[in-house]
Amino acid sequence: MAKAVQTPVQTPSSGMNSVQLSKAGNSAYERMDKVSAEFFAMTYGSLVCQVCCDCTDDCDEINKTLDAMGQRIGARLVDEYIAKSNTPRCRSFKDTGEAIAKAGLRMFLGIQANVDNATSSSYSLVFDENPLNLFVELPEQLRGRLWYSNILAGVVRGALDMVSFSCEVNYVRDVLRGHDTNEIRVVLKEVREDTFKQGVE
Amino acid sequence: MAKAVQTPVQTPSSGMNSVQLSKAGNSAYERMDKVSAEFFAMTYGSLVCQVCCDCTDDCDEINKTLDAMGQRIGARLVDEYIAKSNTPRCRSFKDTGEAIAKAGLRMFLGIQANVDNATSSSYSLVFDENPLNLFVELPEQLRGRLWYSNILAGVVRGALDMVSFSCEVNYVRDVLRGHDTNEIRVVLKEVREDTFKQGVE
Repeated sequence: MAKAVQTPVQTPSSGMNSVQLSKAGNSAYERMDKVSAEFFAMTYGSLVCQVCCDCTDDCDEINKTLDAMGQRIGARLVDEYIAKSNTPRCRSFKDTGEAIAKAGLRMFLGIQANVDNATSSSYSLVFDENPLNLFVELPEQLRGRLWYSNILAGVVRGALDMVSFSCEVNYVRDVLRGHDTNEIRVVLKEVREDTFKQGVE
Repeated sequence: MAKAVQTPVQTPSSGMNSVQLSKAGNSAYERMDKVSAEFFAMTYGSLVCQVCCDCTDDCDEINKTLDAMGQRIGARLVDEYIAKSNTPRCRSFKDTGEAIAKAGLRMFLGIQANVDNATSSSYSLVFDENPLNLFVELPEQLRGRLWYSNILAGVVRGALDMVSFSCEVNYVRDVLRGHDTNEIRVVLKEVREDTFKQGVE
């Protein structure tokens, strides 16, 4: 029986397919200054604890606060991405999924995601490994309500917003909640024409 | 004129000199999972901002809070260090300076420090690079009072405490305050005999 041939996801307007983006992400990751994932995870853990105290375990408020922090970080990381990833500009919303999944997440977190359930105005970033989750087990009262790594949803939203794609970005699966994988859902709300002339493909 | 020959600092009871510790640190760093220093710096920046809000800019309180967070992290990182650094156990307080400076800081932060002003019961960790400081400029009202990276002093204190050395650990120089380098001063207060039989050399 003939073996199925896997063809990389083509993103014609960015000029790079997922394999090329993956290589660019790896290469950028190698060049960047890095710190240990353990230290990062523990520092992030301190941040979540601090936010939990401030929000007196109101999980909606904690999720919102982490998301807002992430948005500010994403707005700055996108500059680093543009300067250091050696990837072509994303010219459509569709391009951004593979760019984040294969190059962006690799550059900044050392991981990669798959793009799943993609339509012309939405996609999911699906990933098994998450350095923010290291050493973490959620207490019963937070499980099912806290999106522990919600800063990441904010980072994606902030980064996309800086390149004119206003999106809703939400965690929908998290291994810390007992799901089999992690999934961040991205839904395009508006392409701001003032700074970006290309529409949705 | 004959060139001065640099002899590595010998730490006889640990069985490794500073060059060997440096190699062990580099090797452990290469093996570890890592994330980008930029993302780490921005996440730490969010943490400091959150603490600043909670402490309404009371810098003494902010410094204390960051130190306490660091202490908890250090108490856990020391296990990682013991498990992954491939360095011999530090058998005296004197050994710990080079171990932190050359192997520990390299493993977890990707940097190295020099040990300076060492006595039998104190030393300074001196380092120019600090990934926590990336992109940071302190506002005038915090400059001179905030030790922005004080979590690191806490990490060192927490780690030393776990191996029976109760110490006072304080930032004394920080480039963010306009100093020419960063310096963390470590002063031994007590070697707890209950868990550790070796005394101070």
